[in-house]
Amino acid sequence: MTLPAARTLEQRKRDTLRRFERDVDAWVATADPGNGEPYMVPLSFLWEGTTLLIATATASPTGRNLRATGKVRLGIGPTRDVIMIEGVAEPLPVSEISSELGDAFAVKTGFDPRELSDPYLYFRVRPQRIQAWREVNELKDRELMTGGRWRTP
Amino acid sequence: MTLPAARTLEQRKRDTLRRFERDVDAWVATADPGNGEPYMVPLSFLWEGTTLLIATATASPTGRNLRATGKVRLGIGPTRDVIMIEGVAEPLPVSEISSELGDAFAVKTGFDPRELSDPYLYFRVRPQRIQAWREVNELKDRELMTGGRWRTP
Repeated sequence: MTLPAARTLEQRKRDTLRRFERDVDAWVATADPGNGEPYMVPLSFLWEGTTLLIATATASPTGRNLRATGKVRLGIGPTRDVIMIEGVAEPLPVSEISSELGDAFAVKTGFDPRELSDPYLYFRVRPQRIQAWREVNELKDRELMTGGRWRTP
Repeated sequence: MTLPAARTLEQRKRDTLRRFERDVDAWVATADPGNGEPYMVPLSFLWEGTTLLIATATASPTGRNLRATGKVRLGIGPTRDVIMIEGVAEPLPVSEISSELGDAFAVKTGFDPRELSDPYLYFRVRPQRIQAWREVNELKDRELMTGGRWRTP
């Protein structure tokens, strides 16, 4: 099988931003700092232009791990057209979410943590590193963002 | 939107085993026990009937984390038809892989760690807990395996 030509950095950034706008779910990996236990679960997200907003039950493993470490890794897309994000997560209580932002999150994701009886937290994820690749010929040049900065305008 | 009826436990097990046979890639989450840094990357797998075989560069973050902790979480399927696996990973040097098993892995995954110049390790993942769900109405009864045992024959 002949692979399609590797995309340019510019094309990968455009494809990545489009996916941030249109995709609904991300794989969210965190770790328990006490015992090195990995956790991962799919969660819906809203792209805010420079950050991603997610929400999870305050008492869930993801919620506990993110409050303890702030460290998160997100995977978006099918495994052969993948975006990997390393980010820093900041907790945002429901009370700090504007009604516009809460509404935008609910419309995009189809669920509204403000209406749930269990305590939920939002987390704002600031990407520090973003990689994107499809097949093995795109592993080279897969770094789109390092140190929180896009490598292409 | 009306969701399809929740699947029975038996149906979910059948669907899960079919996916183990046919799907090629899994999201593989591990953690660095030293600093609680999560790691996650898609890797191809071979289902061996009761265990999953994966392979990664010995020096990769996944390889280092798995050798240090043996703890892994796998996600298979799209995010709205998901299988989550908590497992224990045992490293297997290339020298311990039979030629039949190595060939089966290469045919299923399309890559053959035995032929690569970088040092690679296989890992055999023994599931301890398996969950499967599609939408919110399947969150109940999502446990298919606990303590390494299927809940249905």
